[in-house]
Amino acid sequence: MFKMRSLFTALALAGSVSVAFAWETLPTEAPAPADNATTAEKVELGKMLYHDPRLSSTGTVSCASCHNTMLGGEDNRPNSMGVNGQTGGRSAPTVWNSAFNKVQFWDGRAASLEEQAAGPVTNPIEMGMKSWDDVVARLKTIEGYQVAFEAAFGKDAISKDNATKAIAAYERTLITPNSPYDKYVEGDKAALSAQQVRGMEKMAELGCTSCHSGPAFNGPGAFQTFPVMSNPYFEAQYHFKKDKGLAEVTKKDEDEHLWKVPTLRNIALTAPYFHNGSVKTLEEAVRLMGKLQLGKDLSKEEIADIVAFLDALTGTFPKQQMPTLPGTSGTTFN
Amino acid sequence: MFKMRSLFTALALAGSVSVAFAWETLPTEAPAPADNATTAEKVELGKMLYHDPRLSSTGTVSCASCHNTMLGGEDNRPNSMGVNGQTGGRSAPTVWNSAFNKVQFWDGRAASLEEQAAGPVTNPIEMGMKSWDDVVARLKTIEGYQVAFEAAFGKDAISKDNATKAIAAYERTLITPNSPYDKYVEGDKAALSAQQVRGMEKMAELGCTSCHSGPAFNGPGAFQTFPVMSNPYFEAQYHFKKDKGLAEVTKKDEDEHLWKVPTLRNIALTAPYFHNGSVKTLEEAVRLMGKLQLGKDLSKEEIADIVAFLDALTGTFPKQQMPTLPGTSGTTFN
Repeated sequence: MFKMRSLFTALALAGSVSVAFAWETLPTEAPAPADNATTAEKVELGKMLYHDPRLSSTGTVSCASCHNTMLGGEDNRPNSMGVNGQTGGRSAPTVWNSAFNKVQFWDGRAASLEEQAAGPVTNPIEMGMKSWDDVVARLKTIEGYQVAFEAAFGKDAISKDNATKAIAAYERTLITPNSPYDKYVEGDKAALSAQQVRGMEKMAELGCTSCHSGPAFNGPGAFQTFPVMSNPYFEAQYHFKKDKGLAEVTKKDEDEHLWKVPTLRNIALTAPYFHNGSVKTLEEAVRLMGKLQLGKDLSKEEIADIVAFLDALTGTFPKQQMPTLPGTSGTTFN
Repeated sequence: MFKMRSLFTALALAGSVSVAFAWETLPTEAPAPADNATTAEKVELGKMLYHDPRLSSTGTVSCASCHNTMLGGEDNRPNSMGVNGQTGGRSAPTVWNSAFNKVQFWDGRAASLEEQAAGPVTNPIEMGMKSWDDVVARLKTIEGYQVAFEAAFGKDAISKDNATKAIAAYERTLITPNSPYDKYVEGDKAALSAQQVRGMEKMAELGCTSCHSGPAFNGPGAFQTFPVMSNPYFEAQYHFKKDKGLAEVTKKDEDEHLWKVPTLRNIALTAPYFHNGSVKTLEEAVRLMGKLQLGKDLSKEEIADIVAFLDALTGTFPKQQMPTLPGTSGTTFN
């Protein structure tokens, strides 16, 4: 109950202090943990690993398969497709700006990008490797990786720890600044339309920003209950509660339906929405958030204004050079 | 029988004329057909389409999934994995230097890159789209593609014909020059080791070059019978004859086991080998070619020399900028 109460307090406050609300722009660099300073060599290696389908059992699925760096950082599917066409129950979160998430995965079970990167590789329905020992053994057979790991970490450095550090270092570079919103906040008042400004103000007024604020619109807290309100009608349609969120990991009652607050950055590109990808359009997603999180029936105009504002959160995707993945003779996958 | 006889004649000649054999380097540009001149706009659009998984029914498989431009132009699998984890019977040929193939697909059933590009998109076990009309309809909903097609082909230009033209134009840029072999032929005698030079001479002497000559080592002819010799021992092991090659398309007896002569460029990176990807190493592939095509038992030393030479056919992969694929709101795939 504490979480619900504090949410309502925040909402009540939000209505009165919306003018003073601080809109923040996206930093162009992400902070790195003390034990994994970002270096060009790590980023280059991480980019290779991130795009290498040989990190999967079938040789067909890379990190980028589900978190596509050529698109909005995910795959526009309700659930992703892993090795051998298998699918899970959750929708791939975007990798863009994931450096600014306080926790990782939909259920927030990983505290860092490094920890997150280790997961999908050995998940049987995602990349399907039997163990990280197998991944490391495979990487060691590829001469180009021996060179790239040495450049990034020193001699004989191919390990799970260094592979995930490199992937995380690369992910910290996946930032999309200069959205119309950022330009507006920095003073370019022509960057947003009148409708988008209305939507922006509406989000603060309604209290959306209680959970979705800060540079990536995913704070100040890390977690939030979803849905807050019980609504049998929507539940029958979208099955949000079938998945218990953090409680699936912790098995604690108080963690039921607790989720990482997802970023709103580039949200126009990342349909379908919510943890189970059950909602196809941004309009419906906004309507549901009003009803299920705030207990409000938003008008068509309010929804349209907010969606127009969310469109303004699409940033500039950095130009990246395609990695050339080091080959090896006699490789085959089944 | 005609084909076998002419092959033997060529082999007999090859032995005596090997010194006069012309070794050719790879051109840095590929010729384009009269109705599809290569332009920067087409190449850029083609690069986007080539890497876009939304050209598949599930939104998970792009041309690059099986013909990976970050690797040796294919997927290092005996057979590729299409939508929903489905697999076919043939190994993906490399896209690198495919502009220099006289025909396309393993069975050579497509006369051009344009014709080839249309195939996999609607193949139910590859990209699984119901029809090109569906592909065109999907592309038309994506504003960024409207812009890119207009830049490449003019107003209202989204069509199957233009999509495949753009993909072909992009593929014509996928050339890997400057291999050690090319440098050697151009006069840098230090570019090949003594063993590699022995392997090179051995290939001409044995007659490998009767089929594998020219800039991409895939001519002068377009087709060749494989296997030429019947060998129940190897057939039991590798099942080469299960697939009838061109005859699967034409249903003509004389086309049985006729195949496009594949390029040898970058072959060290494209294991496993042959149309069904049944052979894992280049050593075994060379041994089998000696036995099944030339009727010769190659010695271990001969095989090692030829493999060393084939390693020298790995070229320089051009640096490419990763495309940013145009997104669209409300997209979802199942």
